[in-house]
Amino acid sequence: MAQINPVVGDLEHNTKKIISAIREAEKIKADLICFPELVLTGYPPEDLLLKPQFIEDNLEALQRIIKKTKDITAIVGFVDMDDDIYNAAAIIYNQELKGVYRKIFLPNYGVFDEDRYFQAGKEPSLFVINDAKVGITICEDIWYANGPALLQSLNGAELVVNISASPYHLRKRKLRKRVLSTRASDYRVFIAYVNLVGGQDELVFDGGSMIFNAEGELIAQAKIFEEDLLVADLNLGSVFRKRLHDPRRRKEKLKAKEIEKILVCNNKKTNREKIEARLERDLKLEEEIFRALVLGTRDYAKKNGFEKVVIGLSGGIDSSLVAVIAVEALGKDNVVGVIMPSRFTSPSSLEDAKTLAKNLGIKTITLPITGIFDKYLEELEDVFKGKKWDSTEENIQARIRGNILMALSNKFGWLVLTTGNKSEMSVGYTTLYGDMAGGFAVIKDLFKTMVYRIAKYVNERAEKEIIPKRVFEKSPSAELRANQKDEDDLPPYSILDPILQSYIEEDKSFREIVAKGFDEELVKKVIKMVDKNEYKRRQAPPGIRITPRAFGKDRRLPITNRYVPRD
Amino acid sequence: MAQINPVVGDLEHNTKKIISAIREAEKIKADLICFPELVLTGYPPEDLLLKPQFIEDNLEALQRIIKKTKDITAIVGFVDMDDDIYNAAAIIYNQELKGVYRKIFLPNYGVFDEDRYFQAGKEPSLFVINDAKVGITICEDIWYANGPALLQSLNGAELVVNISASPYHLRKRKLRKRVLSTRASDYRVFIAYVNLVGGQDELVFDGGSMIFNAEGELIAQAKIFEEDLLVADLNLGSVFRKRLHDPRRRKEKLKAKEIEKILVCNNKKTNREKIEARLERDLKLEEEIFRALVLGTRDYAKKNGFEKVVIGLSGGIDSSLVAVIAVEALGKDNVVGVIMPSRFTSPSSLEDAKTLAKNLGIKTITLPITGIFDKYLEELEDVFKGKKWDSTEENIQARIRGNILMALSNKFGWLVLTTGNKSEMSVGYTTLYGDMAGGFAVIKDLFKTMVYRIAKYVNERAEKEIIPKRVFEKSPSAELRANQKDEDDLPPYSILDPILQSYIEEDKSFREIVAKGFDEELVKKVIKMVDKNEYKRRQAPPGIRITPRAFGKDRRLPITNRYVPRD
Repeated sequence: MAQINPVVGDLEHNTKKIISAIREAEKIKADLICFPELVLTGYPPEDLLLKPQFIEDNLEALQRIIKKTKDITAIVGFVDMDDDIYNAAAIIYNQELKGVYRKIFLPNYGVFDEDRYFQAGKEPSLFVINDAKVGITICEDIWYANGPALLQSLNGAELVVNISASPYHLRKRKLRKRVLSTRASDYRVFIAYVNLVGGQDELVFDGGSMIFNAEGELIAQAKIFEEDLLVADLNLGSVFRKRLHDPRRRKEKLKAKEIEKILVCNNKKTNREKIEARLERDLKLEEEIFRALVLGTRDYAKKNGFEKVVIGLSGGIDSSLVAVIAVEALGKDNVVGVIMPSRFTSPSSLEDAKTLAKNLGIKTITLPITGIFDKYLEELEDVFKGKKWDSTEENIQARIRGNILMALSNKFGWLVLTTGNKSEMSVGYTTLYGDMAGGFAVIKDLFKTMVYRIAKYVNERAEKEIIPKRVFEKSPSAELRANQKDEDDLPPYSILDPILQSYIEEDKSFREIVAKGFDEELVKKVIKMVDKNEYKRRQAPPGIRITPRAFGKDRRLPITNRYVPRD
Repeated sequence: MAQINPVVGDLEHNTKKIISAIREAEKIKADLICFPELVLTGYPPEDLLLKPQFIEDNLEALQRIIKKTKDITAIVGFVDMDDDIYNAAAIIYNQELKGVYRKIFLPNYGVFDEDRYFQAGKEPSLFVINDAKVGITICEDIWYANGPALLQSLNGAELVVNISASPYHLRKRKLRKRVLSTRASDYRVFIAYVNLVGGQDELVFDGGSMIFNAEGELIAQAKIFEEDLLVADLNLGSVFRKRLHDPRRRKEKLKAKEIEKILVCNNKKTNREKIEARLERDLKLEEEIFRALVLGTRDYAKKNGFEKVVIGLSGGIDSSLVAVIAVEALGKDNVVGVIMPSRFTSPSSLEDAKTLAKNLGIKTITLPITGIFDKYLEELEDVFKGKKWDSTEENIQARIRGNILMALSNKFGWLVLTTGNKSEMSVGYTTLYGDMAGGFAVIKDLFKTMVYRIAKYVNERAEKEIIPKRVFEKSPSAELRANQKDEDDLPPYSILDPILQSYIEEDKSFREIVAKGFDEELVKKVIKMVDKNEYKRRQAPPGIRITPRAFGKDRRLPITNRYVPRD
């Protein structure tokens, strides 16, 4: 199972990567190599799929792969075409395309829009590869209890391959394991699940490809958040023995349709040494999230041609964590911290920002904003005459910082990483074109309480204080007016975050949230803040999806929306 | 046909509007009143549809409408629910829900995502209303040649009602007419097509509801871009006579499935005066676009609770046109022009901006940016040492203007309208957080050449020079450096725009565009500029869709995308 990291649209690059993995697998005399879903185009290609030339270029690239595939069977995700297009798997052996499987169940929910592009496949087939009967399925196909994998196993498949491009979110790995294990033991079939790895805009694919035996036991697992070639010898003989003991299959078989069997090759490699399957370890929650953020950031920067990133350091927990992630993703020489104190910046914040930068070994630039801010106030004095200081003056400061960061980005070609978290993004406690200005919003899908957890993990992992202790201890503040605290405007994050989670991620109603024990007025206020700030989120940079429901593709609310739930 | 303008999510408001139209139709003794698709929720409700309480609140609102519907049959678009949800039409008479039609063909392309939300309906039925056999269909249903309307007419329907929420784009009205006229004469049936009207984020619904007779002739048409109640007496007796002359129906009928007939009411209103159907005039292209922009802007502002808007006036054609649209949409007292000269602003630009404001009668505020800009340069001097002036310094100026406009917005609650056109947005000739900063991008889907056409129309329509003549004559310039002209960096718009149209709206390949006679190197350069500026467009404010392929929901390209078409 070749768990590789393609680049969306880069057919040349992806083709080379695929051919090189095929070479490697041929060397160790593997019978079969499987690549993830749409590995050739990268996933998701989105509206590139509406360009006829892109489809043709992808077919031409497939031909190059076919020519290079000799003494091994390869399953490669690509876009198939007749008078329509299909999310498909090519089954290749001995420089020939032996068959094609077309995905039957197209996902069109959450972050997926496959009904926008593809026609669905009709019938599954079975491929005979060195005497083994292999059913091929694509991602969503295996999530249907009565899907093609059931039919394939009732028709004799001993192994079902599932090629996937399954994006990461919290608890997704557990969910996948449960479903795949259940399918394997329900169908009494080996399941080899090969997943994509890498970051693509808002999505990060976690890899962690897996093999389950016909008892539903996990027997092999690839690395998580890294490229990997997972090799295993499968004892498919055990499948028949299992089936003799399982009466369910006999009864189900009576009503199962027959499916076509296609011979791919019969060329057993007898002189091969047995390879022990690897079981890479699972990650604990904080490590998993941290590595998702690192990979997502690295890939966004590199795949978009950025070597260096720049971050505004405030001395707060959010920018501190983002700096740590950036250093882990790109190396300390590729991260620049910009410290932009104002008259409201506390000496301790300034000091904490500098300590963090020193701990990380990154370069900093200090550019105070006070002079520029005063100039704005001077120019606006007449127009604002008689008006009180309010969020306007706070936003002006944030936007000066945004302008400075973007100027550094423009001048030096650095990518600006923004530092806003999901709690702020939810309630709009953030300045559009100010702290929201930048190319990539690293932690936009982490609630503030989770930011603290991951930051704590960072120090524990390093076994030293990378993020200064004081950063954890002080009250969160935007420092845009004197003695400002987030809690002046918002409830404590320990209360705000669970309300936000219920409302945003679970679509719970006002009543249901109140029933959990939260204050009515507070819940009403929070819901209103979330709803009316949709316009800000619409202009936010992309960031890494961590929760099951991130802002962006995952949650598509209208801006113009006057819905107020009845009490 | 009640062509009304609902607000997405505002069930209370929409319910009242619907009941009031029913009252009006009862007064004139109409047999039947039809409302647009999903009129109750507004269209498109997007992920509001994933909230169970929203569905329940919509059903409760429908009950209120049912109670108020007495001596008339009403067809009302709503979200139906069993153990799933449906895009549906309620057929109501005498305070009872007589039946429900569920949309069969769900669109999931372009700006539509209905497969994300709805289960499709299975079978159409026929409703008998005062002896007339009426088939009900919803929007997309009628676009399928072999869709439910064919089956309904083969089963005896004399009238097919199509309730729609069909968003405007160029040439869409012509297309609708062609299709509806053909269906009516193919099926030998009257077609009453009732469309939504109003703006919703990027979409504007143009209304223009229509009735075709069984010969495919347009016999009634409602106002375009306005609410309307279109009333017509239909001579359904003519349908049978037509059918006796048409052999196609007999042959098709042999293989047509039978469908259920549901009696709604039998309560003919004999004492009614005959009402002559109205045929509102069509609009010529420029007027059509102008009115789409006006309605889209007005509705975005008002539905989001803004009374006033603010616009940066540069003295160029783009901001001039946007100011004219804003005044038409909201009245001159609700539009503020901000003039922000820099050292690169030519005296003539300054003068033209002032003349335009005077011609429109709008208030202006002049806030030079030179002082603030100098302050930025001073603060950045050390960091930028040894670096040449480049787009960085240009962007700083644009972002100062963005900051000032947003400060006015924050202080006074004005909505910032941005002034970028589609040509600029396509090639990224625009500053993120600078001139792109604002809540609504009025002309983001007009190519520059079209901006000139609409601006010319504006003056012709007024029969005077609202936009000063010089604004049309001077070379377009961002005036962000000395003697800058757009054509220093870009090809002339008369060449750029058709290339952009081929590439963006038609997904033509590099070769196909070159084959049209454009220079190879130029086409390559333009394609590259379009592709690499996806990240800017992702953070752009919403704006009104005018072309068949606007940026936003309509064209969903990945940011991370290394596709380069093969030559």
